[in-house]
Amino acid sequence: MSKLPNTITSIFTVMSKMAAEYNAINLSQGFPNFPIDEKLTAIVAQLANEDIHQYTPMAGYPPLLSKIASLVAYSYQRTVQAETEILVTTGATQGIFTSIQALVESEDEVIILDPSYDSYEAPILLCNAKPVRVALNDDYTPNWENIEAACSAKTKMIIINNPHNPTGKILNEADFEALETLFEKFPKIILLSDEVYEYITFEEKHISIHTRELLRNRAVVASSFGKTFHITGWKIGYLVAPEHLMKEIKKVHQFLVFSVNSLSQAAISDYLDIVSVDEIGSFYQQKRDYFRQLLSKSRFKLMPCEGTYFQVVSYEAISNENDVDFCKHLIIEHGVAAIPISNFYEKGKDLHLIRFCFAKDNATLEEAARRLYKI
Amino acid sequence: MSKLPNTITSIFTVMSKMAAEYNAINLSQGFPNFPIDEKLTAIVAQLANEDIHQYTPMAGYPPLLSKIASLVAYSYQRTVQAETEILVTTGATQGIFTSIQALVESEDEVIILDPSYDSYEAPILLCNAKPVRVALNDDYTPNWENIEAACSAKTKMIIINNPHNPTGKILNEADFEALETLFEKFPKIILLSDEVYEYITFEEKHISIHTRELLRNRAVVASSFGKTFHITGWKIGYLVAPEHLMKEIKKVHQFLVFSVNSLSQAAISDYLDIVSVDEIGSFYQQKRDYFRQLLSKSRFKLMPCEGTYFQVVSYEAISNENDVDFCKHLIIEHGVAAIPISNFYEKGKDLHLIRFCFAKDNATLEEAARRLYKI
Ligand SMILES: CSCCC(=O)C(=O)O
Ligand SMILES: CSCCC(=O)C(=O)O
Repeated sequence: MSKLPNTITSIFTVMSKMAAEYNAINLSQGFPNFPIDEKLTAIVAQLANEDIHQYTPMAGYPPLLSKIASLVAYSYQRTVQAETEILVTTGATQGIFTSIQALVESEDEVIILDPSYDSYEAPILLCNAKPVRVALNDDYTPNWENIEAACSAKTKMIIINNPHNPTGKILNEADFEALETLFEKFPKIILLSDEVYEYITFEEKHISIHTRELLRNRAVVASSFGKTFHITGWKIGYLVAPEHLMKEIKKVHQFLVFSVNSLSQAAISDYLDIVSVDEIGSFYQQKRDYFRQLLSKSRFKLMPCEGTYFQVVSYEAISNENDVDFCKHLIIEHGVAAIPISNFYEKGKDLHLIRFCFAKDNATLEEAARRLYKI
Repeated sequence: MSKLPNTITSIFTVMSKMAAEYNAINLSQGFPNFPIDEKLTAIVAQLANEDIHQYTPMAGYPPLLSKIASLVAYSYQRTVQAETEILVTTGATQGIFTSIQALVESEDEVIILDPSYDSYEAPILLCNAKPVRVALNDDYTPNWENIEAACSAKTKMIIINNPHNPTGKILNEADFEALETLFEKFPKIILLSDEVYEYITFEEKHISIHTRELLRNRAVVASSFGKTFHITGWKIGYLVAPEHLMKEIKKVHQFLVFSVNSLSQAAISDYLDIVSVDEIGSFYQQKRDYFRQLLSKSRFKLMPCEGTYFQVVSYEAISNENDVDFCKHLIIEHGVAAIPISNFYEKGKDLHLIRFCFAKDNATLEEAARRLYKI
């Protein structure tokens, strides 16, 4: 008996574990391998001696809540109420799980795009609700016509992920207009916008739900300090949602974790006084450009990458294997770990694509490229 | 529309907030107010400079998993497999929520005792399952006859809390024998044993599910480093369960939080090398004894306290108010915050009892007693 009979160990666990076993360069699971900002570690070391080791209030450490409000105002010119519209979460994952648990009821339908990040489906299933997958177009843009066709009175929520993991696609003005039209037609649908890579975009500017008045009043936006400040292990993110949704989310949150690590909250709160989010995009753009350049003469074909720290490549010219097997061979025989893209598709659709994480120091990217180049 | 229409803001949030507003001594929400061990803060400060800021493996930081196995072996002479039977969680609360989500299905019944800690009901309701309350006896011992009468083919799980919050009651040999008999009669029921105060017991020794062979193979045991090491804000605990249950719990955990704060995990892992759990009980026993002595000549009647860091008192001799109003007046007029016990009862049964947390430095306990003494 299992409530999630088809749920397997997440591909990130599988590949990171296999990478460790074979001592491969781990470009699979998304995390930076370079040291974090010394200013942040200094803050932690200093705060450790202070009185910051007991529960923070349930919604978050109050100074952090107001810094988040300032960050949202700075980045998106949106005014949010720290007390009622923000919730600090144990990573965006917990924020997403909690939002779904709080807002989706038995028999509801939730639209998720295909391919999709892998954490959305389980919480929907645990609500006895139905995930309805709508395929992205071949260029990974959402197909709004098909999304609209999938909407009905049963549809409770649409989940978007912008920038999109694993494809790196970001949404544009036309997407948001289409979404707004859809929202007018279906006044009860709410939006869950996973924007954890919001600051990691390149040529095109990220358009956040925070900037769309018509949408944000019916939307939960999930953000991640882990991604933004290169501290994925800290497990700290936040949700912004209008009070009528946030009220329900907090009801679940208080009995799901109650509160989030106090020291991390205080450290990020202090760090937000001295750090800027303005350079994160260009920092990763350089990584992306360097990694693409390193691979440019390999037999891998580079797909576009508009955001996130993931580069999808095609290995069509190299092998006919399915992408999971190809990834295994890549680890065992070539010492580089990647993520098979089929894992993000409902039916394991295999386009001979794999995903590399380029959030690595240059030496690591160079050595990985040297190995990949040989294939 | 709400999935939890009757769920309100947790009493701990309400009372702590009110305590802060009125600048009262906060003996409501359970958390220590004294500095944590300097050895632990030194470990954190040192580790902050190391490479410990990215995701740990999903089930936990491997050195911590093996230290937990050693701790369980040391405390309870039970051998557990670090790889398959332990899960590090964002506090015991997340462990409990995740266990319920993973193991309880729609229409199932879950037996919880009345009164009960307040976090069990919401996750059961979110599963579309039914919490079935069975009243404790007047002396707070479980009524095994009534528990057995409440069991049926629909019963999926029994949740026990030992030591019990808020009453401080601990289970004895006879309780475990009754539970074993019950488990023989109902071979499908599983147990969730919330033992977060396992090291905080006094005259009577805590009997853990870990020590009961017949029960532990069908039980999830929840533990809390927050309670054991006075670091409630860190939000770090763990579950121990046999592999067939743990497999299902991990499926949910990986999409609920994925992993737990890396720095906290590493710090506790190192700390477990140098700290002993042997003195925690006597440390809090002194606090309990001192607090009871301070209140002994007040008009509050002290109830027994066998474990936890909570002292329940009756205010029957003082007021006829309901316990919520009494707690409010206690904050506003006397500058001391407590928790009304009615909050732990299904139907808000009001026995004119309130709960004080004595995990405070002596000066705080003295000042609180001075104020309470005047009433
Ligand atoms: C939570 S582990 C996965 C990290 C991640 O977001 C990714 O690799 O896509
Ligand atoms: C999670 S806040 C409540 C802390 C606690 O366990 C209690 O006060 O009973």
